[in-house]
Amino acid sequence: MQHEFDLRLSALQAAYSDGSLTPRQLILALREKAMALNPEFNLFIHLLSEAELEPYLAALDGRTAAELPLYGVPFAIKDNIDLAGVPTTAACPAFAYLPEQSATLVAQLIALGAVPLGKTNLDQFATGLNGTRSPYGACRNSLHPDYPSGGSSAGSALAVALGVASFALGTDTAGSGRVPAALNNLVGLKPTKGLLSTAGVVPACRTLDCVSYFSASAREASQLLALTATLDARDAYSRGNPLWNDTSAFGVPRPGWRFGVPKQLEFLGCPESPALFASTIEHLKALGGEAIEIDFTPFLEAARLLYAGPWVAERYSVAGELIEAQPDAVLPVIRAVLEQAPGTSAVDAFRAQYRLQALKAECERIMTELGCVLTPAYPRPVTLAELQAEPVARNSDLGYYTNFMNMLDYAAVAVPAGFMAGGLPWGVTLFGRAFTDQYLLSLADALQRHSDLPLAGERALQLPAPANLAGNDRARLVVCGAHLDGLVLNWQLKQRGGRLIEATHSSPDYQLYALAGGPPLRPGMLRVTQGGRAIAVEVWELPSSELGSFLTGIPAPLGLGKVQLADGRWETGFICEPCGIEGAVNISHFGGWRAFLSSLS
Amino acid sequence: MQHEFDLRLSALQAAYSDGSLTPRQLILALREKAMALNPEFNLFIHLLSEAELEPYLAALDGRTAAELPLYGVPFAIKDNIDLAGVPTTAACPAFAYLPEQSATLVAQLIALGAVPLGKTNLDQFATGLNGTRSPYGACRNSLHPDYPSGGSSAGSALAVALGVASFALGTDTAGSGRVPAALNNLVGLKPTKGLLSTAGVVPACRTLDCVSYFSASAREASQLLALTATLDARDAYSRGNPLWNDTSAFGVPRPGWRFGVPKQLEFLGCPESPALFASTIEHLKALGGEAIEIDFTPFLEAARLLYAGPWVAERYSVAGELIEAQPDAVLPVIRAVLEQAPGTSAVDAFRAQYRLQALKAECERIMTELGCVLTPAYPRPVTLAELQAEPVARNSDLGYYTNFMNMLDYAAVAVPAGFMAGGLPWGVTLFGRAFTDQYLLSLADALQRHSDLPLAGERALQLPAPANLAGNDRARLVVCGAHLDGLVLNWQLKQRGGRLIEATHSSPDYQLYALAGGPPLRPGMLRVTQGGRAIAVEVWELPSSELGSFLTGIPAPLGLGKVQLADGRWETGFICEPCGIEGAVNISHFGGWRAFLSSLS
Repeated sequence: MQHEFDLRLSALQAAYSDGSLTPRQLILALREKAMALNPEFNLFIHLLSEAELEPYLAALDGRTAAELPLYGVPFAIKDNIDLAGVPTTAACPAFAYLPEQSATLVAQLIALGAVPLGKTNLDQFATGLNGTRSPYGACRNSLHPDYPSGGSSAGSALAVALGVASFALGTDTAGSGRVPAALNNLVGLKPTKGLLSTAGVVPACRTLDCVSYFSASAREASQLLALTATLDARDAYSRGNPLWNDTSAFGVPRPGWRFGVPKQLEFLGCPESPALFASTIEHLKALGGEAIEIDFTPFLEAARLLYAGPWVAERYSVAGELIEAQPDAVLPVIRAVLEQAPGTSAVDAFRAQYRLQALKAECERIMTELGCVLTPAYPRPVTLAELQAEPVARNSDLGYYTNFMNMLDYAAVAVPAGFMAGGLPWGVTLFGRAFTDQYLLSLADALQRHSDLPLAGERALQLPAPANLAGNDRARLVVCGAHLDGLVLNWQLKQRGGRLIEATHSSPDYQLYALAGGPPLRPGMLRVTQGGRAIAVEVWELPSSELGSFLTGIPAPLGLGKVQLADGRWETGFICEPCGIEGAVNISHFGGWRAFLSSLS
Repeated sequence: MQHEFDLRLSALQAAYSDGSLTPRQLILALREKAMALNPEFNLFIHLLSEAELEPYLAALDGRTAAELPLYGVPFAIKDNIDLAGVPTTAACPAFAYLPEQSATLVAQLIALGAVPLGKTNLDQFATGLNGTRSPYGACRNSLHPDYPSGGSSAGSALAVALGVASFALGTDTAGSGRVPAALNNLVGLKPTKGLLSTAGVVPACRTLDCVSYFSASAREASQLLALTATLDARDAYSRGNPLWNDTSAFGVPRPGWRFGVPKQLEFLGCPESPALFASTIEHLKALGGEAIEIDFTPFLEAARLLYAGPWVAERYSVAGELIEAQPDAVLPVIRAVLEQAPGTSAVDAFRAQYRLQALKAECERIMTELGCVLTPAYPRPVTLAELQAEPVARNSDLGYYTNFMNMLDYAAVAVPAGFMAGGLPWGVTLFGRAFTDQYLLSLADALQRHSDLPLAGERALQLPAPANLAGNDRARLVVCGAHLDGLVLNWQLKQRGGRLIEATHSSPDYQLYALAGGPPLRPGMLRVTQGGRAIAVEVWELPSSELGSFLTGIPAPLGLGKVQLADGRWETGFICEPCGIEGAVNISHFGGWRAFLSSLS
């Protein structure tokens, strides 16, 4: 079902720029559409009235798409996130309050030109992964009537999937931003904790909560994250985004990237998921990725801690007073989850944290040499009927691959990866270390391009593939002398967690010199316009945060700049100041430092 | 009182190397000395017998001081840290157990050649800051009989102060490594959490515990930290030391460093502390530091959380079972502290963590532009008589400036800073962001050299002052073009938290070129052997972890290497490959990029 409006960010900007559409036309039409969809899908708890929309539309008068990156872009807000002047319910009418101020992130988006359409339905208190735990009605799936939308951000996913909003805000503590994405053919970005402000969001577990984005494409999620990641003084859990995790990190995968795949895969008997997952692995391999089998047990144990352990007490600290005062105000299924909490002691809470820390150390050892890990987004889908029969067990099934993510402080992106026989969307999750969001999104983008599946709304990916190389928290470094594998200064790379990616050559534009002085003997590589040749080099990868200290330890006349490799790529590597060549010996004819060293012995 | 043996690391190495001393001679003599001191000072709970010492001494046979960095160095171990084959008591006989394996750190030290003398007395379960809460007797001060040694690492401090050990291991959760250092004229290093392994240490609060070093000089503490900081798979809280935080970061203070001083100073009526503190500030100013007044209230509130909040439950999780089974096995004063714990719920624990997180965010905003903060180590000393009269209140007085340190994840060094009228040592604390240990130690070393106070044992600092510049988690960067303050690429520094340190000139050995291409127009600075001149540059400071991403964004032919400044210093800065000079215009006669830009307009 192709939607009436093309809501992709780039398409809207084009339509607004050429005058074929105005924000007012679009927003009011989408409001009509939402009203028509709501009886069946229950996606909105509160849809803004024309009067409520007016101030946002008026603020755009006289502005243009060239000025405002999100000029006239319609978005939906999960109803546990504040929009000034509209009640926040968290899907619990007795809990509702009227915020005077919008959540920081909502205010940021509005300032960028985006227009809020309304507040979306959710599993009460964001406690659930299926989207049926709401007094405002259950949310059915956008593409298959027998299945749920997935939750807890059920209405937000529907708003994008049904073509009512360009993007939507969810929250994601246990998986609420990823499960509904996978079930509705959407990208669901659960950013690194602290990148998007949670000020003005009803907490689920404050130490774990994230706001998430739903969009049709990874590219759009990348743009949204880059526009809104911020260090917010209103949010004590806010963390600054390292500058490399911006859109400049968004690119095509580099040669030599690795992704982990769980040794222990669980599909809970689903007949179709295994093949869909295997085909995604093939797509990633076709994109140059190397699949590495990993032990998944510590990740799964961390996942189990979320609902078995004292983190339930965090949830209770939000809704506990209400449960005590008016037990009937809270859905029985939510109450059953939260009521375990008061018995948990502080001693229990610390002991569970110790266990989590041990698991985290174990998982980090596994992650250290990987760019990301690939898992199914959910093991198998569950029907609305199954959920009604066993609301807790079937809900848990959906969280099998999601619950550990915030416990372990990872970033994650759910990516559409196929459809099941009945047309129900199926998806995978790519996750990685904190602050690798843009890298994960660029892999998700590459996967979307390569698998070439219809996007939500059946639009194609419009933008050209990115031109630059994807970057993550690892920097690449070209070395040509004493830092080569096994040579005298190589420990400086290894002790920084360096990993050899490839032994290759420079482009044929270099001369190699043995510099005066030493020990250790040091080479200088000089880019020349004539008389050059290819020099044997190695490409290493090390944590970007360690590259600065490596640089500051390099004495003149050497330094780090850009070196061109045999395949034409430019990577960071050793360069030499011209004054250093005085008294140096041209050893280019050896073709590399190792060959030169051999000649000395 | 000059000690019989010169136990400084360098002095021992010299004596062993020239054959004037053997480890066996020294260790057995020190054992005699410790036995003689113990009746008065109660410093050892268990002193190793000759038979117990023998394996450690035998292991040194045939080895040399040249091979083993700590060859024959005597050290003492707080009795909450395991030494294989000797009971660990935590100063509670009923709690004692016999470890088969040494703590990771103890094993590391022994492997480096150090010889353990025995297990030292402490406040029971490391709960206390005074050193009198032990069934093994109270520890009096090393220099003044009316005062306590300070705790909880009371015996470890005494072992070094009384000339029985070169260094000693303490633990420091709330201040147990710093208060006894200050009271005994010692350096007390409380390293960044996770740098030294806590595997094999009886926990106090596992999320906060650190092992600490006592030594006469900051230089020795620096050496010990560099030798033993490690990522230990046995300790889930272990963290890797960034490579810049090694002895290469230990040096003389750089121009333009800043230290915070609390606006709200508290001396609890002590008549002498204010003048001693003021004189320390003057010493640091004489070392080139700029004093910045800071709001200390969030630090103090974080300190109060440690004993008022659920962190007491962490302590209880260690000794709670024993208290329940045999209440009389635990000292009443310790029991009184711990017995608050069982009433604390997991909800309380999370709420306290939220508050701590808010304080942490506030403190980090204050710390961001500082190299460190200076405080008194304790507001005023308390006598043994005062402690007896009011054991809890007077103990708390000693922790006024220490309790927040691990809660906020800072590194800290207590440094001797004078003597009170009666001869009691007085000290300060220098603290800073996690992983700035070696930087703090180099400032402590500079302070010790500048104040020139007698060290423990009345020895002088023997080693020459370090030759290099002190490094911390901030890197310096010399810029000469579009990154200058206010120019077109300056945001790349500011968005990385960059701060302008000084506007200065290069040494007179450079030429400045306007490179072909742009916009933006870019300069190349070329070091030359003749025809150079001084070029106007700026020195910026930015987080070292952000320098790598800055570097990877620099296109050829530019790069980062070393630039010499007018005063002769070499700092990291922009360099240019010779091939980039082709087609470039020599603009050296403008003397700098700004002057050149002005000429264009």
